[in-house]
Amino acid sequence: MNYRMIKFIVGKMLLMEGVLLLIPAFVSLLYQESSGVYFLIVTAALLVLSLLLSRKPEDTSIYAKEGFVVVALAWLLWSAFGALPFVISGCIPKYHDAFFEVVSGFTTTGSTILTDIEALPMGMNFWRCFTHWIGGMGVLVFVMTILPLSPKNSMFLMKAEMPGPTCDKLVPKARSTARLLYGMYLGLSVLEVLFLLAGGMNLYDALVHTFSTAGTGGFDNRNANVAFYDSAYIDGVITVFMLMFGVNFSLYYLMLLREFKSVWKSEELRAYLGIVAAAIALITGNILHLYGSVFKAFRYASFQVASIITTTGFVTANFDLWPEFSKTILLIIMAIGACAGSTGGGIKVSRIIILARTVTKEIRQILHPKSVNVVRLDGKRLTEDSTRGVYVYMSCYVAILALSVLLISVDNFDFTTNFTAVLTTLNNVGPGLSGVGPVQNFSAYSCFSKLVLSLDMLLGRLEILPLLMLMAPQTWRKRF
Amino acid sequence: MNYRMIKFIVGKMLLMEGVLLLIPAFVSLLYQESSGVYFLIVTAALLVLSLLLSRKPEDTSIYAKEGFVVVALAWLLWSAFGALPFVISGCIPKYHDAFFEVVSGFTTTGSTILTDIEALPMGMNFWRCFTHWIGGMGVLVFVMTILPLSPKNSMFLMKAEMPGPTCDKLVPKARSTARLLYGMYLGLSVLEVLFLLAGGMNLYDALVHTFSTAGTGGFDNRNANVAFYDSAYIDGVITVFMLMFGVNFSLYYLMLLREFKSVWKSEELRAYLGIVAAAIALITGNILHLYGSVFKAFRYASFQVASIITTTGFVTANFDLWPEFSKTILLIIMAIGACAGSTGGGIKVSRIIILARTVTKEIRQILHPKSVNVVRLDGKRLTEDSTRGVYVYMSCYVAILALSVLLISVDNFDFTTNFTAVLTTLNNVGPGLSGVGPVQNFSAYSCFSKLVLSLDMLLGRLEILPLLMLMAPQTWRKRF
Repeated sequence: MNYRMIKFIVGKMLLMEGVLLLIPAFVSLLYQESSGVYFLIVTAALLVLSLLLSRKPEDTSIYAKEGFVVVALAWLLWSAFGALPFVISGCIPKYHDAFFEVVSGFTTTGSTILTDIEALPMGMNFWRCFTHWIGGMGVLVFVMTILPLSPKNSMFLMKAEMPGPTCDKLVPKARSTARLLYGMYLGLSVLEVLFLLAGGMNLYDALVHTFSTAGTGGFDNRNANVAFYDSAYIDGVITVFMLMFGVNFSLYYLMLLREFKSVWKSEELRAYLGIVAAAIALITGNILHLYGSVFKAFRYASFQVASIITTTGFVTANFDLWPEFSKTILLIIMAIGACAGSTGGGIKVSRIIILARTVTKEIRQILHPKSVNVVRLDGKRLTEDSTRGVYVYMSCYVAILALSVLLISVDNFDFTTNFTAVLTTLNNVGPGLSGVGPVQNFSAYSCFSKLVLSLDMLLGRLEILPLLMLMAPQTWRKRF
Repeated sequence: MNYRMIKFIVGKMLLMEGVLLLIPAFVSLLYQESSGVYFLIVTAALLVLSLLLSRKPEDTSIYAKEGFVVVALAWLLWSAFGALPFVISGCIPKYHDAFFEVVSGFTTTGSTILTDIEALPMGMNFWRCFTHWIGGMGVLVFVMTILPLSPKNSMFLMKAEMPGPTCDKLVPKARSTARLLYGMYLGLSVLEVLFLLAGGMNLYDALVHTFSTAGTGGFDNRNANVAFYDSAYIDGVITVFMLMFGVNFSLYYLMLLREFKSVWKSEELRAYLGIVAAAIALITGNILHLYGSVFKAFRYASFQVASIITTTGFVTANFDLWPEFSKTILLIIMAIGACAGSTGGGIKVSRIIILARTVTKEIRQILHPKSVNVVRLDGKRLTEDSTRGVYVYMSCYVAILALSVLLISVDNFDFTTNFTAVLTTLNNVGPGLSGVGPVQNFSAYSCFSKLVLSLDMLLGRLEILPLLMLMAPQTWRKRF
């Protein structure tokens, strides 16, 4: 384990967060809020820390192991320091609450412990929602676009942080890939801001909602969430952009290259759109009697389906009051999640496709023991390694889900609340049902449960392995 | 596909059920109940049917494919015909209710749609509980002990029906293995009857409770279930026997051979006992305040843990009123289930061990890419095929769980009810929580939901693959 290189990268990471904190400080200045000074204090602390860690080692090589450890550490530390402005300003007095909120931000979950969001100063709320935008594409991918790292090093970091069973480089160099990704991310974000401004939103609200949509997060500066605007136009714009940010970004690159045929051939995209269409149709029919008109039912159904499957978690209707069938559909698409290589969380559509295909393959194999069966995705043959990776991921996923529900059950809330609280945090969605439903929040949970749920958010966003690595004793053994 | 041989075996199966129905008919006679005649009517019908199917084909060879199909058909048909006495006697007027009840019996689930069990005639209740005893060891294994089949044929049937990721033959011949298994099963059952009689139970009650314990079913002839006796002795006897029937039967064979060392080395047995001990300890502590004394809390906790992990489903306390932490433990051990090769259901302890080890192996592989890692169970190296089998099983399990919860959600019961209804039927346990809790029953679900849950019970008992095979179009294609 190359400890020095890990220290070096972590130092750069902290420096970067210090710089980023200047943005909400500037927003505070604009709104003449004195609480802006707390951002500057944390920035100063981060600068000092990063200076202490800044000695570049001679051996700069890192491998998969170091990649996982750096990613896990980076996310933990960014959350730990990102929570400080809330605590020292007194906006969120308890540290574990602030930590939960910022983890929820960086992991683009959007679950909140705040009971009155509108009471936050403008600068604080800006930082809270801005963490979604940074976390969406990955905090390390963000750093890579700026930091010079050797191509091999970058690749290991990227592999550890990018969601989904496969990590495609768009261009041969990982760093150029990261820049391309952030370029497209920025481009789409600007587009959404413009559309929201056109709908009569003010610039601050448009920015905040774009951060949340782009990162598929779900934080909002209004207590009533997107329902505040009660505008079919704004609902529609956000629905479309949520769905767009749930698509694999490499498809946008293909579009830039005008390879539209390959885009349409993407099996994950087709499955994703198919699931979205089916879920919207079923829920629209199921809630029709509640809203009276097909248009209204369709508007709420499509917004909520897009919000849940992309794991954004915005809310325009209290879906906890919908029939059980609609709620169960939402829980299932909550677990499925968005496409690999998007900013969305969840298991990912491509993993579901791979699982379905391996099961079919096994049945074929029993029926015709002599035939040769392979699993393909987009025409490419999947290796045993990558299918096994999907299985290992799923096993960990189910085990973490069960264990977390058990751990938070000590607070003695009902099963629906506990189960959906874990499901929504592990998949980085935001709201659950019952006690953590769309008009509720996570404030009632104990400090211990909030830490468990924070860990679930990190496990979900980093797709489990990096954090497991960090906790495995073997990682820290000198011998190997 | 050797259709003629499938027909032939199915014919023999139906004949055997006809013969078995004479036993409850005899019980009815003893109690001078006129409803006994309905068993004879169904027996007559089954005799005629089996005669129509009795022509032995020239080609008697069957393979894995036929094995799965025969097993799936046998279980479906036994349930379909076993339900008839209830319907034509008017004891359970609706066919889908009777089908649910008998599927619940043969699959040793123990979920009931009956609101007043004590209203059933003695003969009918005897048949209801006797299905547990037959289903426990497997209906085809039962037939194999009597029917002469070629050794190879028997093996394919046994593989398709025996629970757990591995199928050990105790002795080289499958038929002798089946007889040995049933011998030990009968021996343990007789022992339990004697212990229950010694506790003051009458013979009928002792038989019925032994059927339920041995098959890890859970049906009872009392509305209050085992709580009716309110006896620490009877609770204790049933607790111990439930745990014993949840152990791999090949270990009892090793005991008969006096190989006690190999028994104690069984990793699955140790893990099983460890989970049981941990669950009892945690729940005892958690419910102490409800019962006042450690002995009482321990008595109810140990009975319920044994009842749920072995997937029996007997009840001595309304655990739906216990704290959420205890309930969540029960839900988790409900899914884990008993040991492979026992009469219990669930995922099986050995599968959990294999999953945990493959995950650890993958992490080791990432940490030390060049090292060679293998997964072992009881010192034996597991093949890629068998670990992949476990993964495929788990993927199907989760998919069936999610889909079933969605399907029965149309009845609009709450999520806890729906989720635990599916969990308890898919794992062949019996009671769930909330609307299907220990003092509730499944009568409120619609006909459609009851069919979905019946299918879940069959999928759980046959460990998914045979029924999936039966539904796969490729199975029925002529070409291969």
